[in-house]
Amino acid sequence: MIEAAEIINLTEMGERAQAASVELARLTTEQKNAALLAIADALEANRARIIAVNAEDIADARDAGTDPLYIRDRLDLERRMDGMIADVRKVADLPDPVGRIFDAFTHELGMQVYKKRTPLGVLGVIYEARPQVTVDVATLALKSGNAVILRGGKEVLRSNMELVRILGEALASVGLPADAFQYINSTDRRYVGEMLKQHKYIDMIIPRGGNALHNFCRENSTIPVITGGIGICHLYVDATAKMDDALKIIHNAKTQRPAVCNALDTLLVNRAVAADFLPRVVEHLGKDGVIFKADPRALQILDGSDQVEAAGPEDFDTEWYALVLGLKVVDSLDEAIDHIRQHSTRHSDGILTQNMDDANQFLDEVDSAAVYVNASTRFTDGSALGLGAEIAISTQKLHARGPMALEELTTYKWIIIGDGHARP
Amino acid sequence: MIEAAEIINLTEMGERAQAASVELARLTTEQKNAALLAIADALEANRARIIAVNAEDIADARDAGTDPLYIRDRLDLERRMDGMIADVRKVADLPDPVGRIFDAFTHELGMQVYKKRTPLGVLGVIYEARPQVTVDVATLALKSGNAVILRGGKEVLRSNMELVRILGEALASVGLPADAFQYINSTDRRYVGEMLKQHKYIDMIIPRGGNALHNFCRENSTIPVITGGIGICHLYVDATAKMDDALKIIHNAKTQRPAVCNALDTLLVNRAVAADFLPRVVEHLGKDGVIFKADPRALQILDGSDQVEAAGPEDFDTEWYALVLGLKVVDSLDEAIDHIRQHSTRHSDGILTQNMDDANQFLDEVDSAAVYVNASTRFTDGSALGLGAEIAISTQKLHARGPMALEELTTYKWIIIGDGHARP
Repeated sequence: MIEAAEIINLTEMGERAQAASVELARLTTEQKNAALLAIADALEANRARIIAVNAEDIADARDAGTDPLYIRDRLDLERRMDGMIADVRKVADLPDPVGRIFDAFTHELGMQVYKKRTPLGVLGVIYEARPQVTVDVATLALKSGNAVILRGGKEVLRSNMELVRILGEALASVGLPADAFQYINSTDRRYVGEMLKQHKYIDMIIPRGGNALHNFCRENSTIPVITGGIGICHLYVDATAKMDDALKIIHNAKTQRPAVCNALDTLLVNRAVAADFLPRVVEHLGKDGVIFKADPRALQILDGSDQVEAAGPEDFDTEWYALVLGLKVVDSLDEAIDHIRQHSTRHSDGILTQNMDDANQFLDEVDSAAVYVNASTRFTDGSALGLGAEIAISTQKLHARGPMALEELTTYKWIIIGDGHARP
Repeated sequence: MIEAAEIINLTEMGERAQAASVELARLTTEQKNAALLAIADALEANRARIIAVNAEDIADARDAGTDPLYIRDRLDLERRMDGMIADVRKVADLPDPVGRIFDAFTHELGMQVYKKRTPLGVLGVIYEARPQVTVDVATLALKSGNAVILRGGKEVLRSNMELVRILGEALASVGLPADAFQYINSTDRRYVGEMLKQHKYIDMIIPRGGNALHNFCRENSTIPVITGGIGICHLYVDATAKMDDALKIIHNAKTQRPAVCNALDTLLVNRAVAADFLPRVVEHLGKDGVIFKADPRALQILDGSDQVEAAGPEDFDTEWYALVLGLKVVDSLDEAIDHIRQHSTRHSDGILTQNMDDANQFLDEVDSAAVYVNASTRFTDGSALGLGAEIAISTQKLHARGPMALEELTTYKWIIIGDGHARP
């Protein structure tokens, strides 16, 4: 068993990560891809060992009485090994954002002016007890030329330390600094607070977890934080919606993966179609075990249905993460937009309509990271939207909004090439 | 005399700004430009009144014993009125970033996916006692569809309140919400701290001022902060530099406007040319009254010169804002890059060289917002680099780096248009 270190020196970790980041920023795409393939090979070669260490974490969690579903969903690496290794090879295939030149122009005085994408430097990522995230984040950091300081959920400390050790050895085997990937080897939460003050070394904090973690980071970090990943998502069924399509989309958005952030939480239905449509929703989704929380008008329509309950005061501000769906009848598109403005977390919201004006008003006035017309909110995902990967979904507005992948882990510098140019 | 309000309710200000921002986000470019021209006309019509109110601020500052140069440089509006009004008309002529569509593609399932630029929402800007900044910031916010909460330097509270009143009336005259521009009507510094916690209403904080203000914002804000505007800027004279060009560039960078952030602070000279070049620098810039702070090797070369002093331990970490220049002899390009890494504030740094390899190494390894070859650091400026305006210069890496103008005051949303699309 690996013992957690007694005292962690975050400043020293930051210095080492920053030194590594300078080397990473200089690498060619070929060098980074070679390192990624070496990582995939090392994970393959150490498969048995990783599973054994992970089994120790799982055994401890079982002894502590952790819910077996939680263990299976989050802690267990064995059934994810193949996908995890395949994803590393996929990152090697993604285009490298670093070095890309944009906004180039010739200055009126003859200088060449352009912007060039560069790595951010050092990322700090705080995440839940999902050890495969360690590999996901480290490989995306590497491909984008960044070093990373990691802090994952306490139940899988051993699994994470083992993965980071293997990843570091793989880096060293191709001549790259193992300090590029560092893990806070302690379950003590005070190191999260300390990490958030390391603005001298860390350039961006990405928290992955619940509301409490995001609020803690926003309130305590002196480093820019990407908040997000919390999705109270809405669909609004307009009077002109194609009802069969609407049922299919709502079913997909609610039931495909209820425990993820882009799952549907609240369905708003125009009163013109509510009496016909709501019973169909309850019948169609009810078969999959969905429970409904209905506002008074929806409740009146659905009166007597077993799976329908009266919505409580907090229910329209709840991200369900479960087979539960809020239902509300609205008089108009304006009322739907107002409801979304008040209750949405600005993650993913959509309208189901055949009326172009209504669609455009919804797209203009709903201020969320992803806004949909006639499609499921489940598409808010880096892979599903063409980024090839995903490190986080931002619901804040600076730097990046919505799914973030490699380009969102970079910044740019201005480059100005003159020939003896002084400013007039 | 306008009395400062006793108690300011920042939550109420935030709510009103947010409500105004929803209206602003819907405006067409034509509506925003009409409002800008109405503002320019209103400033023109109220010129005498503005100057009279500003004179009261100036009189108080004089009575308080404020340095007349400081009053002239910062507080005095009269000599800036023409430029300020012309700038408002210029903002009307700039392209509108809002609504621009980018990264559009057809999803493999047939959905249309694209990103669309939208306003950030509400900006919070904290700035020094320069009343024309009130107008600059408000008009850039308006053109980018944002509301703004302003807090300027205490010496010009009356001038600022008067300007904001006139601007609000101009907005109202074209049917726009005067709440789009709000000013914290108090000199009490505690409202700065309170403003930094209004993440429910304010989307971005832009501090404009010294290091202390930037550090205060970084440490206390729960809103994303754009830090920047602090420039310890370097030029490195390589052995192959064209010496006449180098002299001209260094003279421009140091003496054109010594009190701005893109002015030169430290000159690094390769030892191969130091003995010839440094005396020429001292002669050429010395005529303009520049004082030099020389490291031991530079001092040895310049021994006996009146305007040359030995550099103290802090001198290479000082932004001079004055006719003072640090001088240091280095053995190599690597040593120059190392010095810049340690002492630069990552604002603007340049190399003067005819060697392409050296230029490329410098561009790759110096991690500053603007990196130069054979040009003056004075070009780091929104207008000089083609943005048409400037609200701040960011030296942090998220969201925007270097000069920021209209596009940098926007975010984007993802838009996904399907036709009954569920995620497979």
